[in-house]
Amino acid sequence: MSGRRGTNLPRMGDYNLRVVLDQIRRSRTGVSRIELSELTGLSAQTITNLVTRLIADRRVVEGARHVSGPGKPRTMLHVRPESGHAIGVHIDPLALTVALVDLSGAVVDRRVQPLPPTAAETVDLIAAEVRHVRESHELEHLHGLGVAAPGPIDLDAGRMVRPPLLAWGDVPLRDLIRSATGLATVLEKDVTAAMAAEIWQRHHTLRGTTLFTYLGYGIGFAFARDGELLTGASGNAGETGHIIVDADGPPCWCGNRGCIGIASSMDYLVEQGGDLGLLEPWDPSLPPWRIEVRMERLAALAADGDARARDLLEVCGRRIAHGIVLVADLLDADRVVVGGANWERMRPYVVPAATEELGRFGTMRDLHAVEVEGTDLGIWVGAVGAASLVLDRALSPHATALLSAAE
Amino acid sequence: MSGRRGTNLPRMGDYNLRVVLDQIRRSRTGVSRIELSELTGLSAQTITNLVTRLIADRRVVEGARHVSGPGKPRTMLHVRPESGHAIGVHIDPLALTVALVDLSGAVVDRRVQPLPPTAAETVDLIAAEVRHVRESHELEHLHGLGVAAPGPIDLDAGRMVRPPLLAWGDVPLRDLIRSATGLATVLEKDVTAAMAAEIWQRHHTLRGTTLFTYLGYGIGFAFARDGELLTGASGNAGETGHIIVDADGPPCWCGNRGCIGIASSMDYLVEQGGDLGLLEPWDPSLPPWRIEVRMERLAALAADGDARARDLLEVCGRRIAHGIVLVADLLDADRVVVGGANWERMRPYVVPAATEELGRFGTMRDLHAVEVEGTDLGIWVGAVGAASLVLDRALSPHATALLSAAE
Repeated sequence: MSGRRGTNLPRMGDYNLRVVLDQIRRSRTGVSRIELSELTGLSAQTITNLVTRLIADRRVVEGARHVSGPGKPRTMLHVRPESGHAIGVHIDPLALTVALVDLSGAVVDRRVQPLPPTAAETVDLIAAEVRHVRESHELEHLHGLGVAAPGPIDLDAGRMVRPPLLAWGDVPLRDLIRSATGLATVLEKDVTAAMAAEIWQRHHTLRGTTLFTYLGYGIGFAFARDGELLTGASGNAGETGHIIVDADGPPCWCGNRGCIGIASSMDYLVEQGGDLGLLEPWDPSLPPWRIEVRMERLAALAADGDARARDLLEVCGRRIAHGIVLVADLLDADRVVVGGANWERMRPYVVPAATEELGRFGTMRDLHAVEVEGTDLGIWVGAVGAASLVLDRALSPHATALLSAAE
Repeated sequence: MSGRRGTNLPRMGDYNLRVVLDQIRRSRTGVSRIELSELTGLSAQTITNLVTRLIADRRVVEGARHVSGPGKPRTMLHVRPESGHAIGVHIDPLALTVALVDLSGAVVDRRVQPLPPTAAETVDLIAAEVRHVRESHELEHLHGLGVAAPGPIDLDAGRMVRPPLLAWGDVPLRDLIRSATGLATVLEKDVTAAMAAEIWQRHHTLRGTTLFTYLGYGIGFAFARDGELLTGASGNAGETGHIIVDADGPPCWCGNRGCIGIASSMDYLVEQGGDLGLLEPWDPSLPPWRIEVRMERLAALAADGDARARDLLEVCGRRIAHGIVLVADLLDADRVVVGGANWERMRPYVVPAATEELGRFGTMRDLHAVEVEGTDLGIWVGAVGAASLVLDRALSPHATALLSAAE
């Protein structure tokens, strides 16, 4: 273990090129060279040189000349969104979603399919979806394929490791998908990818400590600080489902009751709905997409004023809120972003409960507010995030890239 | 919000000076200029210039000439430990500890006093202790005073914010101590300081994700990644005491049972010991140091084979272990370091339980081991950490220091 390494000029140049591209990318209305110099602290000459390189690479174009005040008009610079793309795929028990994302972060295409029952069929479907996307668009440069999948994941090996939400066992997913598609493939945990989508979409303005909560078929967390993912020793941070959120909750296989994994799960809600006669009787052999159909019905009943359905969702909402507040408090988060297939249905029950719980026992209640907000990316957040990770690795400035190669 | 900024030559030079000083500091047997060049990736000429500056500043000295192989003998470089010091103070309900730490991280002096009942008396005692330390040592350069205190803390204002463990209310501790001592003062949360001590003592070799668990009068957590503290929105990450670790545990004021704060607290153990007749009857007006005397007796009874005392500590150990495993799993930690006044007593009960819990439900159990180890710094870890924070701010390389001043 040799510790910190120094920095040098070629690394500095590449870093600064990424800094400038990043600033241009995040400026929705364009940015001038002088503004870039002010924004980045780099000299006018350095900016001119870097912008010349970016224009030659066709990453950036000059736009309108902008007159402000008595000085020379400023030429606005914009990224060329079509100069780079990535495809993202999200493998979720409820569906396979696919998104094509361009350099500006815009979602150019999106597709959804039922998830096949086996890993082999899923790999085939992903290959077909990728082929379809590539045939439907003329892509100048495809940076690669990102795949978001339920954790835990062995990221080094690119394998799923007995994910609780998919009975696929240990699957070397990254290599299977790379072979099937012929694309450079990044495999990431679903919630981490969703967090990456928020970071990329908000153009690195997601400062402070952010907690992403993914509420789909199950629940998971991801963390970021100042727009950088915090993923832990093996990239599986946020995976735990055994935080107790209600000591009177349903029994968990771990021996405790009311663990967040089971207490917030869609199948437990639908089972309860069956037990109360609000839905057909519970059948554990139902495929996830059929459980989601019943979940949708349960949410509609509650929205229409059915008191028993409402009670079920309120209790579940409080449990989810309790878990979110515990984790947000532990991390001292500024902001909680929630997304996933079950979020819109649960939102009316989770948000007020979270506000109440934060005020009731949150350690930070005297220090700062904690915002709880929904993602703008809907059910696409995982797939968009998987694509964002590919673009991010290819294009974004990271302070660590300044340091010479690690030990 | 303006995003990433660039880097430039003066920042690079200062950063590289810190990189070189840091490498010399962490090399216990000295390091040559050629080795520094290999370790840092910086050119031989750059290293020569930076070392010349460090020798002129009397931070670094040349030592023995080391002959290895046929080449020119290499002159070994060492930090001058006496070229810089910091004083650390740890305010804990159980005691006030003081440590004088030199540039090498060595603890040159340490003192312990009972904690006075009020904030005003504590500030006076700190001023007297600092005076005593300064009079007892000839210090070339005192970088400042670090103060570790129970959270939550408003770090910007330098205030304690109604810490649950000290009934002092809101105290502007930093300014009071700065006025009383005349020293530049850094106020930090106790567990964060303890984590900083581990980082500084291990010379930035604490890679990966580390969870520090402080087990004193109460319990708290702190997090680091690759030797950098992760402290959250307001610097209070790890403060929560409401993770449920045993649904059959004692009632908490928040309405739940078995929250980790109460279930792992020294006064609850001593109260239980009183209820069982193992100790004198519980008296809520006892000062913390007298509770610790009883805690010590309870631990001695258990060690001597008293079955009821042993049961109490085993149940408590399992609860603490459950909490540690939940948090370690959530963060996907590589390593858990535990310290604090109650750690040595609880260690025989916590370590085996943690191993068992990790194997039972830890999400990461198939992916990597999680080491649970004790700090080498004993009860001094908070005070040493507070001093380390002062030295760290003054001397260590941080990648963010490369970037131009933030927005």
